[in-house]
Amino acid sequence: MTTPSPLNAPLPPGRWALALHGGAGTIARSSAEAEAPYHAGLRAALAAGEAVLVQGGSALDAVVATVVALEDCPLFNAGHGAVFTADETHELDAGLMDGATRAAGALAGVRSLRNPILGALELMRDGRCVLMGGAQAEAWCAARGVVQVDPSYFSTAARRAQLHAVRARDAEAMLLDHHAAALKMGTVGAVARDRHGHLAAATSTGGMTNKRAGRIGDTPLVGAGVWAADGHCAVSTTGTGEHFIRGCVAHDVHARMAYGAQGLVDAAQAAICDALAPLGGSGGLVAVDADGRIAMPYNSTGMYRAWAREGEAAHSAVFEPLFLR
Amino acid sequence: MTTPSPLNAPLPPGRWALALHGGAGTIARSSAEAEAPYHAGLRAALAAGEAVLVQGGSALDAVVATVVALEDCPLFNAGHGAVFTADETHELDAGLMDGATRAAGALAGVRSLRNPILGALELMRDGRCVLMGGAQAEAWCAARGVVQVDPSYFSTAARRAQLHAVRARDAEAMLLDHHAAALKMGTVGAVARDRHGHLAAATSTGGMTNKRAGRIGDTPLVGAGVWAADGHCAVSTTGTGEHFIRGCVAHDVHARMAYGAQGLVDAAQAAICDALAPLGGSGGLVAVDADGRIAMPYNSTGMYRAWAREGEAAHSAVFEPLFLR
Repeated sequence: MTTPSPLNAPLPPGRWALALHGGAGTIARSSAEAEAPYHAGLRAALAAGEAVLVQGGSALDAVVATVVALEDCPLFNAGHGAVFTADETHELDAGLMDGATRAAGALAGVRSLRNPILGALELMRDGRCVLMGGAQAEAWCAARGVVQVDPSYFSTAARRAQLHAVRARDAEAMLLDHHAAALKMGTVGAVARDRHGHLAAATSTGGMTNKRAGRIGDTPLVGAGVWAADGHCAVSTTGTGEHFIRGCVAHDVHARMAYGAQGLVDAAQAAICDALAPLGGSGGLVAVDADGRIAMPYNSTGMYRAWAREGEAAHSAVFEPLFLR
Repeated sequence: MTTPSPLNAPLPPGRWALALHGGAGTIARSSAEAEAPYHAGLRAALAAGEAVLVQGGSALDAVVATVVALEDCPLFNAGHGAVFTADETHELDAGLMDGATRAAGALAGVRSLRNPILGALELMRDGRCVLMGGAQAEAWCAARGVVQVDPSYFSTAARRAQLHAVRARDAEAMLLDHHAAALKMGTVGAVARDRHGHLAAATSTGGMTNKRAGRIGDTPLVGAGVWAADGHCAVSTTGTGEHFIRGCVAHDVHARMAYGAQGLVDAAQAAICDALAPLGGSGGLVAVDADGRIAMPYNSTGMYRAWAREGEAAHSAVFEPLFLR
């Protein structure tokens, strides 16, 4: 499985690399005009992470800045613009991992943190727990100064219409929105290598439209939805969460590199093809290795994504897989 | 890293193997008389799983029967006899995985399910979610007929004294109970290979004494606290949960076997020594492979455990590591 992508070439030492995703799924092709706002959102989030890295900032700070921008963008399923649960509420999950220390922080089922990834960061910095859930997690974060909002902040008219369409199994209404199918279970995430060679990953989501309240997906789970280890890789996943959990997909990329001597691109592609797909899973991931290589495989029809490396032009894409359909 | 243990020899085809743990930690050596009840509890749980396997039952049913017996035993930190949170409540986590189908089910932070592992099983059988948390998880399980109890059912005088000792940092009181240090963060779990060659794993816990309410440990996390994949291994872990999450320790055993061509015993020992210990983690795991080999490494002073293989005598142990201290 050799790959001709230029992103499979190592960066010169001391250069940064950044990749993000805004969800993967069955995305119908539409006009360039209809896709333009998504590309703009992806590029803006990329720029937020780049701004950290070009100043010599850490991979951790870069992925947090990127994911905050994606959470704030109403087009993607995280933070403002999160999908609705079956109870017509929002339950947000987020997780991050610092490859330098292998520290991690994650939140499940929070309902009032403006940027769940900032709550996860606070938990990681505290260091006593990796994962907290529900109201207690929220209260703990609030006491530490993580900004809370009224839950209506997360709601958008487009997401409410999506919930009603899903409830009515209104296939026609879903198809009218070319992005609906992907975004009803989308996720956002980012991975980075900073100039010092450190890696980090962050993932955030509003979960699945019409999901059962209380369900925790792969997003806040270290090894499933997020993973980072210096010297190996940083990974953020998106797709049918239960399959990513059962395949331990993010750690699977690491394991193929660490124990199977595979390169990042082959390991990432194999994790999607051989660990996720046989379970019936659909989705993709973004990953970066210690040399700044980037891999973005997916087995869905599309994945919202963007990437940049120091000294190379920034890109965003929805289709046009570099490695794999 | 070769190991002379007889458990490293494959079983003849068509024979079953079963191993369980009741927690790992800093366990002070005490008299045989004081240890006897623990051995009796371990043996009774082993017998519950054996009863399934000798009738040709599935590995899944065997690990569930074993963990139910451990949950029902007040000596171990799961179900009846679970430790107290900082709020003087009980929050129970449990997870299981069926190696034959790679299906999994897990619950986090439930407070009224008599046997949390049976709730996890129900969730796995339903198949729509792998992991649910909190009150909604509980309500869903109750609606499906999983037995609920008043939370006082889980409480024992010994655990309440343990909480008070921890709160008072009363080292003397802790030392009087030789098993306190291990059991304040214990877990129970089981792994099995059935006569048909299928593998399964299950893990259950009351968490850590005086833990922050809302904290979710490794127990219900696929890849960290529980893992099973036919053809490779089934794994159940116990110890300092946050380190097991950050090391993705259960899946790490699988990965070393699948991608690094290591045998079960070497892979399990390396997961403890090379994936867990460098993070500062302490604890152990029980694991079984497709040929019925059993590994039970730990890096704490002891681990409550028991094991049996078809045609061989049953054993229980607290110290006397077979492979590793």
